[in-house]
Amino acid sequence: MKVLNLAKQALLAASLCSAALQPANAQTTTPAPAPASGGPVDAASMQDLVLANRVLTDLNVIDGFGHVSMRHPANPNRYLMGRSVAPALVVADDILEYDLDSNPVDARGRASFLERFIHGEIYRARPDVMAIVHTHSPGVIPFSVSSVPLRPVFHLGAFLSPGVPVFEIRDSAGQSNMLVSNPALGKALATTLGESNVALMRGHGSVVVAATLPMAVFRAHYSNVNAQLQTQAMSLGGPVTYMEPEESKKTLGVIDQIHGRAWDLWKRAALEKMPGK
Amino acid sequence: MKVLNLAKQALLAASLCSAALQPANAQTTTPAPAPASGGPVDAASMQDLVLANRVLTDLNVIDGFGHVSMRHPANPNRYLMGRSVAPALVVADDILEYDLDSNPVDARGRASFLERFIHGEIYRARPDVMAIVHTHSPGVIPFSVSSVPLRPVFHLGAFLSPGVPVFEIRDSAGQSNMLVSNPALGKALATTLGESNVALMRGHGSVVVAATLPMAVFRAHYSNVNAQLQTQAMSLGGPVTYMEPEESKKTLGVIDQIHGRAWDLWKRAALEKMPGK
Amino acid sequence: MKVLNLAKQALLAASLCSAALQPANAQTTTPAPAPASGGPVDAASMQDLVLANRVLTDLNVIDGFGHVSMRHPANPNRYLMGRSVAPALVVADDILEYDLDSNPVDARGRASFLERFIHGEIYRARPDVMAIVHTHSPGVIPFSVSSVPLRPVFHLGAFLSPGVPVFEIRDSAGQSNMLVSNPALGKALATTLGESNVALMRGHGSVVVAATLPMAVFRAHYSNVNAQLQTQAMSLGGPVTYMEPEESKKTLGVIDQIHGRAWDLWKRAALEKMPGK
Amino acid sequence: MKVLNLAKQALLAASLCSAALQPANAQTTTPAPAPASGGPVDAASMQDLVLANRVLTDLNVIDGFGHVSMRHPANPNRYLMGRSVAPALVVADDILEYDLDSNPVDARGRASFLERFIHGEIYRARPDVMAIVHTHSPGVIPFSVSSVPLRPVFHLGAFLSPGVPVFEIRDSAGQSNMLVSNPALGKALATTLGESNVALMRGHGSVVVAATLPMAVFRAHYSNVNAQLQTQAMSLGGPVTYMEPEESKKTLGVIDQIHGRAWDLWKRAALEKMPGK
Repeated sequence: MKVLNLAKQALLAASLCSAALQPANAQTTTPAPAPASGGPVDAASMQDLVLANRVLTDLNVIDGFGHVSMRHPANPNRYLMGRSVAPALVVADDILEYDLDSNPVDARGRASFLERFIHGEIYRARPDVMAIVHTHSPGVIPFSVSSVPLRPVFHLGAFLSPGVPVFEIRDSAGQSNMLVSNPALGKALATTLGESNVALMRGHGSVVVAATLPMAVFRAHYSNVNAQLQTQAMSLGGPVTYMEPEESKKTLGVIDQIHGRAWDLWKRAALEKMPGK
Repeated sequence: MKVLNLAKQALLAASLCSAALQPANAQTTTPAPAPASGGPVDAASMQDLVLANRVLTDLNVIDGFGHVSMRHPANPNRYLMGRSVAPALVVADDILEYDLDSNPVDARGRASFLERFIHGEIYRARPDVMAIVHTHSPGVIPFSVSSVPLRPVFHLGAFLSPGVPVFEIRDSAGQSNMLVSNPALGKALATTLGESNVALMRGHGSVVVAATLPMAVFRAHYSNVNAQLQTQAMSLGGPVTYMEPEESKKTLGVIDQIHGRAWDLWKRAALEKMPGK
Repeated sequence: MKVLNLAKQALLAASLCSAALQPANAQTTTPAPAPASGGPVDAASMQDLVLANRVLTDLNVIDGFGHVSMRHPANPNRYLMGRSVAPALVVADDILEYDLDSNPVDARGRASFLERFIHGEIYRARPDVMAIVHTHSPGVIPFSVSSVPLRPVFHLGAFLSPGVPVFEIRDSAGQSNMLVSNPALGKALATTLGESNVALMRGHGSVVVAATLPMAVFRAHYSNVNAQLQTQAMSLGGPVTYMEPEESKKTLGVIDQIHGRAWDLWKRAALEKMPGK
Repeated sequence: MKVLNLAKQALLAASLCSAALQPANAQTTTPAPAPASGGPVDAASMQDLVLANRVLTDLNVIDGFGHVSMRHPANPNRYLMGRSVAPALVVADDILEYDLDSNPVDARGRASFLERFIHGEIYRARPDVMAIVHTHSPGVIPFSVSSVPLRPVFHLGAFLSPGVPVFEIRDSAGQSNMLVSNPALGKALATTLGESNVALMRGHGSVVVAATLPMAVFRAHYSNVNAQLQTQAMSLGGPVTYMEPEESKKTLGVIDQIHGRAWDLWKRAALEKMPGK
């Protein structure tokens, strides 16, 4: 927690610094001026973000909907995410940069996701988070509407420990259109997420966070796999043995060490399918 | 409802007008003369209908059976649908035009679906409906034979609210061959559907309607997805939280706004697989 | 039943006739001479049998195991089936001809399936049957080991009426290797099948029969689909409405009329994947 | 058991012999010298091991994780397994040779799997075993965390008899990172496996052994299939009839005879997908 607090302070400092660096001619009229860019992003990071969109589609974690973002590598107050298009179709030119209020830096006519506030508010609340996936994946949605909690049943789901909170949008928005479509709802979701790696969104899907983009993809996929395994295990009728919190904690170190093996495989498969690869 | 009544009156007027425009030399002998055409259909609409057949197959909503139609863009008393062939094989030349009695305008030897009356009678009863899908999709059939109702469990299934009626063909036809193969059964199904977006057909499948073709495809697919999610959620054993009617109502606006994103993705994938694309 | 008895008499007559036509120089030493051929088979029938092997694999009805046969078009006392190879790999040269004792006419070193007696004995007992599929399909096996009977839940499963008997090999063979690997077990299975279209084999799979090859493929596939739908419907927990016997009977006529639509689709897809098509 | 004891003695003799043949200049300093090679491996065996990696991925038995090994054909004290990479990407140059302590013979910078001790210790304990698969396959994991035992429900799962033990790593390692990552845990797993063909690993996956590589692949796949069939059969709610031990025993002979049919199919499909085939 101490580390986290330090990180939060650093983030705050960076935020103030970033504000100080706003161009002098920033307009004060309505609409607010577009935020300044966090600077150029290296091609490899950009390509990884493009590929993450396609990998998540290949894994059936997202379909025509859902999105994945990463924090700007050079500026913690900016993040990068595709425009409002099916993730399977995203190319580098579709990537927009946003500030943490989820204002686009340079939209150039490209439409933004209505739910981009999920990303901005979690990046603000969680300085340790460098990548976020929002899914409607079929394994996890049943747990978002059930009284039965999603729990880690196998080692690759260890990141579900110590718990997977469920965001009930009715608590913040009453009878709503179900979308996290403004800063206040984004903040409420971030509060529900707390220090967890995954939160379910009731009747909607999930949000998954990690310190790297490959790990966010890994967790989004294995959340879905773990959910399906738990559903099957429970259907057998007998008692189910879940991972102990300490087992999960120790297993996180293993996943850190091995998750690149899956990312390499998924990335290669996605690259092979890209036109003009 | 007032809007709907106005629309119904407009449809009636158009119908009378259309009748007045029948060619003077229309034959009065048996068999009845083929109805007049509603006029040429633009190539883009025609291609969308061809692609809808293939998209629905790719999504496993329909297989060798099932069908999709659209109302004639220029004449509300005509509709367009493929000949009696597996939807995955449909090309533009397979599209027939029908009047609302489901008589083909110009069959040219092309066989019609036995159940085309589903389409004709719903277009007659529901002037707001511009496209219809009839499916045997695997997620929804279990709900067609169960006492458990299909209900919206996630936001993309909001169109299942306020309810999904089940058409029991025994009530109209007694011990039948299960097919909606004449106008009377088509009317009975349309009556069961009422103002809903989806009706289940007991021991058979579903019928899905919408104001546009992409939305009909969207609803057919997410009916199937929602059904599978509900089945899984119920299997967990605890109570399930469904969408509230008001949530569903508000979410319909969201789906209006975003469903094109899925259609673009599906259409592009289907186009890439068409020979001589 | 009268028609069936007539057919049985015709079969018997043909059988005697066939015996009379045995070449004069037939050897009487052990091993028994190979039976005479029923004559050449037209290329289209042969190709349909090859394609049926591949279609059933594409539909996940059979995998590396399972087999499909057809009665010889010109001689009711002969049948045709692939050699002992994975069905997905079968080509015309792999098709062997057998008599109803399941002796190959001209093996030319090609190995026969251990369970070919399933086919020979059913063709002997059921003159109306022209094609047979033996599957290990995943939907039906659970019903082969459960006290819950497989029943028609939707119209495309109407051929499961009036009932699906289960062959318990222990009743004939005690503790066995589970295979129908001799004439006596083939006869026992044929007796269990009786006049049904499908029989389950406990802890093993199913046998599906029809008056044409496309219909046998259709029934093998929709047995599997119906089984999965029934499993899902039962999992919802409420009472399930099954097809009434009279509904099923009437629906058989519909399936007769429409099943070619599916066969055309499946055949075309299989053809497109054959090398040197 | 007598045969097994003889085999164990032979293995011990071979081991001593192998030790005697260590090069005279073997270094005695720390780190321990790399073990001597068991000699060259024929290209066909090597290719089979490469293909087994890809076949198991195609069958969804393993994903980015999991591994398959074979005992060295010429030296029972050595085994062969891919480096730490996703199995779908393995080529011949990725295959490492290990001694039974799981020390690589000639790593050349290629990383080893953390859990290679599963393989080394089972090869040591079970001289009859010539190939091993470690899976996280989705069918079996639910049984690894349930009180319900995995049992043979159909003939192709006969090798699950007389029983499938579950390895509870807590019994050996307490609260651990779940990995069999040292010789002691490998031995404990081998002890749990005993003379069985399959052991489940709680909250992790399975280990599958056989006397040949094709049979190990067969058992890994049909363990997964059988698990899914059993899950479905149990969900029907009625009593389930399992294979009797004697049936299973007799069926093993059948599987010996026919499993090559599946291997031929799977191998051909994997070969067709290899680059530069």
